[in-house]
Amino acid sequence: MSNRPEELIKKIYEEQGKINDVFLTACGGSLVDLYPGYYFINSESETMHSHWLTAREMTVSPSKFLKRGALVILCSHGGNTKETVEAARLAKERGAAIITMTHNPESICAQEDMNSVVYSWEDDTNERERPQGIVIRVLNELMKMQEPGYTKYEAVLDGLEKADGIVRAAVKKVQNRTWVFAEKYFDEPFLYIIGSGASYSQAYGFSICSLQEMQWMDCCYLHSGEYFHGPFECTDEDHLYILLMGTGKARVMDERALTFLKKYAKKYEVIDAVELGIDAIDESVNEYFCPMVFYAMTVAYRTGLQDKRRHPLDMRRYMGVVEY
Amino acid sequence: MSNRPEELIKKIYEEQGKINDVFLTACGGSLVDLYPGYYFINSESETMHSHWLTAREMTVSPSKFLKRGALVILCSHGGNTKETVEAARLAKERGAAIITMTHNPESICAQEDMNSVVYSWEDDTNERERPQGIVIRVLNELMKMQEPGYTKYEAVLDGLEKADGIVRAAVKKVQNRTWVFAEKYFDEPFLYIIGSGASYSQAYGFSICSLQEMQWMDCCYLHSGEYFHGPFECTDEDHLYILLMGTGKARVMDERALTFLKKYAKKYEVIDAVELGIDAIDESVNEYFCPMVFYAMTVAYRTGLQDKRRHPLDMRRYMGVVEY
Repeated sequence: MSNRPEELIKKIYEEQGKINDVFLTACGGSLVDLYPGYYFINSESETMHSHWLTAREMTVSPSKFLKRGALVILCSHGGNTKETVEAARLAKERGAAIITMTHNPESICAQEDMNSVVYSWEDDTNERERPQGIVIRVLNELMKMQEPGYTKYEAVLDGLEKADGIVRAAVKKVQNRTWVFAEKYFDEPFLYIIGSGASYSQAYGFSICSLQEMQWMDCCYLHSGEYFHGPFECTDEDHLYILLMGTGKARVMDERALTFLKKYAKKYEVIDAVELGIDAIDESVNEYFCPMVFYAMTVAYRTGLQDKRRHPLDMRRYMGVVEY
Repeated sequence: MSNRPEELIKKIYEEQGKINDVFLTACGGSLVDLYPGYYFINSESETMHSHWLTAREMTVSPSKFLKRGALVILCSHGGNTKETVEAARLAKERGAAIITMTHNPESICAQEDMNSVVYSWEDDTNERERPQGIVIRVLNELMKMQEPGYTKYEAVLDGLEKADGIVRAAVKKVQNRTWVFAEKYFDEPFLYIIGSGASYSQAYGFSICSLQEMQWMDCCYLHSGEYFHGPFECTDEDHLYILLMGTGKARVMDERALTFLKKYAKKYEVIDAVELGIDAIDESVNEYFCPMVFYAMTVAYRTGLQDKRRHPLDMRRYMGVVEY
C-alpha cells in the first residue's frame, strides 16, 4: 500500500498553512468519483468550503477563492483530459495546491509537478487505492490536521479498511439479480435513477457513464429530495426506476421515494447499501462509503445489460473515435 | 415597484455585519430560480461562498457555516412547502439571516418573522419583481455594500431595467417556432436539454418542471461541459435535443455542443439568448439574465406542447392530489 496520498497532503499542509477551500474538479466519470469528498467536507468541516464542478466550468469562470489556501483535487483516468489538465494549470498559476489522480503513469497528469497519485485499476484493486478512497484518505488527514474538534478520523480509517470487503461481498450477492434485471429490462426505452446525499453522484454516474456512454441507453438521474417536486409526476406502472438507498441523514429522502414507488410504480429496482452490508462501518461515517458500493453495483448492472443486449461496454462512436 | 428586497438586505447587513456564506435553498421550480444568484456569487464574490441545494438536504445535513454571518435565501411559490419552511426555521435557530420569497401572502413563508418578500406572478409581472430578479437585486446590493472592489453594480441595475423588455420581445419572437416544435416533436418518447453556466438551472427546470411535471414527458438535463464526457454517445439522428445557449464565459461550452449536434444530430432546437436580444445588457453581466429569458422560453415551449398534446399544464396525478 502506498502512503503517497497521506504524504502529499501533509506536505501541502506544511507549505500552504490553513486550507480554506477544497475544489474537486474533473470530467464525467472522474468527476463522479470526487463527489463523496465534496459532500464529506460540506457535512463535516467547520473551516473549509468545498466546490464540485466540471473542469471546464472552473477554468472559464474560476472562483476568486481559487488561490493560495485552496486545495484542488483533480482526476483524469487517461491522464490527458484537456479540461482537467487546464484546470490543474490554472490552479497552480493562482497559487493553489493540487493533487492529481490518474491511472496512466505516462500521462500529463502523472508528471511530478502535478502532485500526482497514480492509481491502479485492476479487478482486485482495493477500494482505498481507487479515486473515491484516495479522496477520502486525503480529506480525512486534512480534517485531522486542521480541525482539533474532528472526531471521525479513526472511524473513517476503519471504514477504509472495511470497504473493499463489503464491496466484494456485495458484488457476489447481486450477481443473479443483475441477470434478472437485464432479462426483464434490457429493452426499456428509458429509465430514471434516483439517489441523494453522498450517493447522488452515483445516480449521476450510473446515468451518464454506465448507461448513456457505455450502453447508449437513455436515462435521467434524479435527486431523491427533488423527485417529489416535479419528476414524480411521470411515475406510473410503465416507467422503470432504479433507487440507490444510502445511509446517514440523507437516507430519509431515499426512503420516502421508496414508499412512493411501492405505491405508484411497478417496475423499480432497489439497491440498498444497508442490505449490502455498509453498516459494518460505523454509522457516523458509513454514508461516505456508500458510493463505493454503488459504483460496484453500476458495474455489475451494466455488465448484465452488456451481456444481454450484446452492446460492448467499451464500444464508442465518438469518444476517442472522432474529433470534437 | 417595491423596494422591500433592497431594504431587507440593508437591514440584514446592518444587523449581521459581514456576510460570509449565502445559502440558496428551496424545492423544484423554486430551487431553479435561485441558481443564477448562486452562480453570480460564485463568479463575482471574493468574500462570500454560496451554496445551492434542495431544502431537505440542507436540513438533514446542514453545513457548519449555517450560522450567524450566513444569509439564507428561500423561495416557496405556494408558501407552505414543508421542506422549505423547515429550512427557514433551522436557519433562524442557527442565527443565520433569512429572506423568504413567496407568491402566497396568506402562507407561512409570508409571515413577518420569515423576512418575506411576497412577489406577484401575473403575466405582466416585471422580471425584476419575480424571484430570479429579486435574488439578483438582493445580491447586487450585498456585493456593493460588502466589496469595495465590486464594479458591476450599475451594469446589473441596468440589466434589471432592461430584462423585462428583452423577455417580452423574445416570447413574441418564438411564438411560431414553439408551434412548429410541438407539431414536429409532440410525440417524442424522450429528449435531452443542455445548458451551462448560470443557465444550467434552466435545463434542469425545463426538464423537471415543464416536461416531467407538467407534461409527464420523459427527458434528461445535461451540462454542456459534461455532455462530451459520456452523454454524447447517445447522440444520433433519432434523438431530440434542446440546447440553451447562454452568454458570458460559459458560452464556449454551449457552442461546442452546438458544433457537435450540427454534425451528428438531426433533431435539435437551439434557443440562443444572443439571438433573443440579451446583449442589450452589458456583456460583463448579461449571463446572469439569460435564465430569465430561458424560463420564459420554457413557458412558451411547454404551452405549445400542451396545446398540441392536449395535456393541460396544470394537470397533476400526485402533487396536491394524493398524500406522499
